[in-house]
Amino acid sequence: MGGDNAPEVVIEGIVLARDKLPQVDYLLYGNEQILKPLLDKHGTARKVCEIRHTDDVVSNDEKPGIALRSGRNSSMRLAINAVGQGEAAGVVSAGNTGALMAMAKFVLKTLPGIDRPAIASFFPTMRGESLMLDLGANVVCNSDNLVQFAVMGEVFARNVFHIKQPSIGILNIGSEELKGHDSVKQTFNILQNIDLPIRFHGFVEGDDIAKGTVDVIVTDGFTGNIALKTAEGTARMFGSFLKDALHSTPISMAGGLLAKPALNKLRMRLDPSRYNGAMFLGLNGICVKSHGGTDALGFSNALGVAAELVNDGLNDVIKEDLSHLDTEEPGANKTS
Amino acid sequence: MGGDNAPEVVIEGIVLARDKLPQVDYLLYGNEQILKPLLDKHGTARKVCEIRHTDDVVSNDEKPGIALRSGRNSSMRLAINAVGQGEAAGVVSAGNTGALMAMAKFVLKTLPGIDRPAIASFFPTMRGESLMLDLGANVVCNSDNLVQFAVMGEVFARNVFHIKQPSIGILNIGSEELKGHDSVKQTFNILQNIDLPIRFHGFVEGDDIAKGTVDVIVTDGFTGNIALKTAEGTARMFGSFLKDALHSTPISMAGGLLAKPALNKLRMRLDPSRYNGAMFLGLNGICVKSHGGTDALGFSNALGVAAELVNDGLNDVIKEDLSHLDTEEPGANKTS
Repeated sequence: MGGDNAPEVVIEGIVLARDKLPQVDYLLYGNEQILKPLLDKHGTARKVCEIRHTDDVVSNDEKPGIALRSGRNSSMRLAINAVGQGEAAGVVSAGNTGALMAMAKFVLKTLPGIDRPAIASFFPTMRGESLMLDLGANVVCNSDNLVQFAVMGEVFARNVFHIKQPSIGILNIGSEELKGHDSVKQTFNILQNIDLPIRFHGFVEGDDIAKGTVDVIVTDGFTGNIALKTAEGTARMFGSFLKDALHSTPISMAGGLLAKPALNKLRMRLDPSRYNGAMFLGLNGICVKSHGGTDALGFSNALGVAAELVNDGLNDVIKEDLSHLDTEEPGANKTS
Repeated sequence: MGGDNAPEVVIEGIVLARDKLPQVDYLLYGNEQILKPLLDKHGTARKVCEIRHTDDVVSNDEKPGIALRSGRNSSMRLAINAVGQGEAAGVVSAGNTGALMAMAKFVLKTLPGIDRPAIASFFPTMRGESLMLDLGANVVCNSDNLVQFAVMGEVFARNVFHIKQPSIGILNIGSEELKGHDSVKQTFNILQNIDLPIRFHGFVEGDDIAKGTVDVIVTDGFTGNIALKTAEGTARMFGSFLKDALHSTPISMAGGLLAKPALNKLRMRLDPSRYNGAMFLGLNGICVKSHGGTDALGFSNALGVAAELVNDGLNDVIKEDLSHLDTEEPGANKTS
């Protein structure tokens, strides 16, 4: 029931995902009176969906703590419970991010060795795509948190991107070891000496995100969220300026028409719905957050991300890797 | 002598700036054997330049502390000294940013009421342009620092953008009061109750930078630097993808040719050299940092920025405004 266009995009997203995810069945938590007519309209979805009725929803502006206490019968909470109880293999929601994280953490708990889950997402880059985490779950991170993000990101890139030895970078304001604040410097030291086969690149800067300098970019949730939204805003501005330019004269309009198929491909390449589906990594269960304003295609991509995380057994690999990690590494500041 | 293409771009920048800045004369600090032949080549520059010879230069990878101690006869230091001694009205350099800041702070000192200077620069936005600070001088900032940045940015926007009542926003990961870390929340509280006629908008997010939601964006140097470079990297990626798209088929190439004048205008609109010239605000003297990799046009813009700051008497207005500001405002954490 969450997001700007729910539950329509959810159902339409399921329809679009049928071909790519023929093996997936869905439990739909929400208002049956709204959901049923939509399912009746979409026969392909009806066959694979089971409605679990509840009247209660978490609103978009609900504070996470309040949602956690008073939303025990909300569609969001019941969907997460289904994962906790083993009835569902994963949960996807386009609803309130903070509430989803708070509830998922409470119900599913974190993986052993993880103090805090992180929000991770794909970024389009000049080389293909990269993973960045955290994108907003943790405003302040110590070096332990950042090291755990690095390990989770590495496992993710290895298993989902299928990169044999993904490279890891820490987002900083310079590539030299001396720059930045204490927690990034400590993380640098720990990752340089870590007892895992991690390909640690060192520090990367803001422009390295789009360059695709590394496969996984590790940062705190404050910086990551601002980098993500700055990139989105810049791309949107560029797109709007491009449109203005192509509409500025009759000749440029003709040029724009000729180039339209190519420009559409460009739009596709940068389409946010292609990159929809932020993963909550570090939870003992698969939880994927779709953008609230996404369309059906975007929602189907978020479903695909969740299915892939389940199929790849991502959490088992993270658990395995973390069990080798000595969290009492010298230099780590234990203040969780 | 600083920057990737010095001193050629410096001299060529002076030539380009002649029309816009007919009243400006230049003291050129650096190697006379290199500078003189260049001036001889550019008659228009020769008339307004005086060479002050020194062999010593600060290299690009010199650590600020070392540059400060051992660079007493460097071209950078002597140019700053000229401002300190009142011989020059301002200094412009394309050299090592950290060294320039350290030396300028040491020689010029900060304005009364300013604990730390900030690096500020223009950003292109959908509405025109905005100012953002700090972009990297201060990795960690307390609320006092951020409030001072807000006051300096406001004065700047009023005097240089000629906006009667510029709006001020604090960069954060959400627009609600509850989000973010302590120093942004404290800054929010102080700016909401400040005894100055500041039009305080509240929190802004990363995508508000390109939207142009506010005239002045206040942030710490870590976040600001990463936002700046993420935006630059995204714009470059978009440009490169656009080029790829327009070269993908013969028809799209024809379209690109027709649209070329319009696309060139777009390129101009986002050209980093148009936005070249980061200001060190809060120093008791005008100091402008040009991008190290800039071209002559970019350097001439940096010269224009410095001349404008001098002409507008920016520092006098900042001093005046700060004298009205009660720095013992409740809620401010004094830990400078």
